[in-house]
Amino acid sequence: MSNPSLLILPGDGIGPEVMAEVRRVIDWFGDKRGLKFDVSEDLVGGCAYDAHGTPLTDETMAKAQEVDAVLLGAVGGPKYDKLDFSVKPERGLLRLRKEMDLYANLRPAQCFDALADFSSLKKDVVAGLDIMIIRELTSGVYFGEPRGIIKEGNERVGINTQRYTESEIARVARSAFEMARKRSNKVCSMEKANVMESGILWRDVVQEIHDAEYPDVELSHMYADAGAMQLTRWPKQFDVIVTDNLFGDLLSDLAAMLTGSLGMLPSASLGAPMANGRPKALYEPVHGSAPDIAGQGKANPIACILSFAMALRYSFDKGDEATRLEQAIEKVLAEGYRTADLLGEEGKQPVSTTEMGTAILAAL
Amino acid sequence: MSNPSLLILPGDGIGPEVMAEVRRVIDWFGDKRGLKFDVSEDLVGGCAYDAHGTPLTDETMAKAQEVDAVLLGAVGGPKYDKLDFSVKPERGLLRLRKEMDLYANLRPAQCFDALADFSSLKKDVVAGLDIMIIRELTSGVYFGEPRGIIKEGNERVGINTQRYTESEIARVARSAFEMARKRSNKVCSMEKANVMESGILWRDVVQEIHDAEYPDVELSHMYADAGAMQLTRWPKQFDVIVTDNLFGDLLSDLAAMLTGSLGMLPSASLGAPMANGRPKALYEPVHGSAPDIAGQGKANPIACILSFAMALRYSFDKGDEATRLEQAIEKVLAEGYRTADLLGEEGKQPVSTTEMGTAILAAL
Ligand SMILES: CC(C)[C@H](C(=O)O)[C@@H](O)C(=O)O
Ligand SMILES: CC(C)[C@H](C(=O)O)[C@@H](O)C(=O)O
Repeated sequence: MSNPSLLILPGDGIGPEVMAEVRRVIDWFGDKRGLKFDVSEDLVGGCAYDAHGTPLTDETMAKAQEVDAVLLGAVGGPKYDKLDFSVKPERGLLRLRKEMDLYANLRPAQCFDALADFSSLKKDVVAGLDIMIIRELTSGVYFGEPRGIIKEGNERVGINTQRYTESEIARVARSAFEMARKRSNKVCSMEKANVMESGILWRDVVQEIHDAEYPDVELSHMYADAGAMQLTRWPKQFDVIVTDNLFGDLLSDLAAMLTGSLGMLPSASLGAPMANGRPKALYEPVHGSAPDIAGQGKANPIACILSFAMALRYSFDKGDEATRLEQAIEKVLAEGYRTADLLGEEGKQPVSTTEMGTAILAAL
Repeated sequence: MSNPSLLILPGDGIGPEVMAEVRRVIDWFGDKRGLKFDVSEDLVGGCAYDAHGTPLTDETMAKAQEVDAVLLGAVGGPKYDKLDFSVKPERGLLRLRKEMDLYANLRPAQCFDALADFSSLKKDVVAGLDIMIIRELTSGVYFGEPRGIIKEGNERVGINTQRYTESEIARVARSAFEMARKRSNKVCSMEKANVMESGILWRDVVQEIHDAEYPDVELSHMYADAGAMQLTRWPKQFDVIVTDNLFGDLLSDLAAMLTGSLGMLPSASLGAPMANGRPKALYEPVHGSAPDIAGQGKANPIACILSFAMALRYSFDKGDEATRLEQAIEKVLAEGYRTADLLGEEGKQPVSTTEMGTAILAAL
């Protein structure tokens, strides 16, 4: 039997630096745990535009469809700000999400004990925090038509369409309920049903799927603005949150920042099962390409390494190995290893991206 | 010359209780400071639906168009959750905003010294915080067409439209720049120009208005998800934030919660000048109708009283009197008066809604 295949797309900014550490971790699992992967690497985002005039070539897209999992670093940078919308770095990432049909974006917001002090929130509010945001990732205002900037009289008008079908809502709701059953059995669904009809449909379908298929799971509904408030006030009231693409974008970033561990947080984007039973899958850190520190060896590779841990768990059914990796990371944090993002203004010398990677390998 | 006119719409839930305290404050200004108002009162929201089968009658709408300023309490409650979308309590509020064309929603997020400990954020992160969020209030996905729930094949599809014209963006941008000139001369505009064309137009128009009319103001742009993060990480980096209706809904609630003073925060919604030079205006607390504590005398009237202070400042050009009222409120807080929302789990006895009103009158 051939090895499972991984496509690595380091992308822009700090993407290549943090991905270099992931590759060392992948090699370690191959050498020491007999978990060998067929790894290929390609371009996405600004670097793909520089090379090919498009943020994602058809060849790379086809490769992504074939492999068992994609690992992505980050895309974007000020260099590309002036590019036409259709070839912006983000379009490469959005095309991957859409064409692979990765509808369930799993974003754990977890506060690492060793870092609880680093949050802008009070320690008791965030210590031990562990919530899972499940964001719909292939529909909503990100992809709805009509869209664009049109001319009306002598004015420009900007248009986007929020659009959700029943089945799009139902499948991500199922992902959330399944996840809840593996956790504390509690889902909170967020929308703006008081203002948007698409929110009404969202609320209704989530409730229907619950009543018909997951009556054992505790379900509540909250308006997204109240959700932003409650996440800030007392995030531990939540376990699994399920929400749409745009609300999920804001709320998951907010939740990530609460933990004080932005450079630490991974994500998984999952689609339907492939012929081999594995879901279509893309793993990426929650943080962006951080162009301000790119190329300086300052970036924290942990979010990207933890994204590989999620791949072990969700694509390759190696939950034990994922836990091994996660524990190694907790260990280096407990030992005091800190990249620059994990240190306040004053204080200790940070370790570099590579030093952090080396420490994690040692802990493994 | 006749007295300026005020239309009071207490609304649902705690609305009537907190508005009763505002009326005592209005009376005080009439008796003691010679600031007399012609006050009328009417229904909006669920109570209007109960009485008339609509959350806002045409008569009330017409009155709102005629008066110098509207003061609103809050709308909504679980009792009305099952109502058809078109007659939900919120529709009354949204109709007022839309037909009065109140495009600039001013939402100060201010941390009161006496309450800095009460935030879920660390004291140094929020102490002294004073930012102003200007939210576009009459357009975007709240009002865009087409909208609704349609049937496609045998599926329901929920649709809303995000739609912004150049002039809609331009006028709220001007409000933000004008506000910035009275404060620290700094505006940050938030959108998702990396994903939405309406965000691109938003960014471009804000930049154009800046370059042509307000080059002296410092302008920056941020993606709304990054904005949610940065508000959580270090909110003091901001002075004036300008953003669209939906992002403004989430971000201003988030900012309000940061301050730990949700029951304290007022808002002003302003439109174009009327014949008498005063802007069309509606003032309301940021908090909602809090049905869980309604009718128990527990609600904090300060947000609603501070909304009247904003009316004094923005509608009646009585900045001095507004400051007088704001200082009276700071005084009672410094003296230790606390409604239930301003106390932690354990500790002191809270004062009631009326006791807080009485204390403020005494401080005046
Ligand atoms: C880079 C950008 C297109 C993307 C998004 O808006 O989805 C990012 O913010 C994210 O959350 O993954
Ligand atoms: C009550 C609701 C319609 C309203 C909104 O979404 O605008 C509220 O959340 C607000 O922010 O004023």
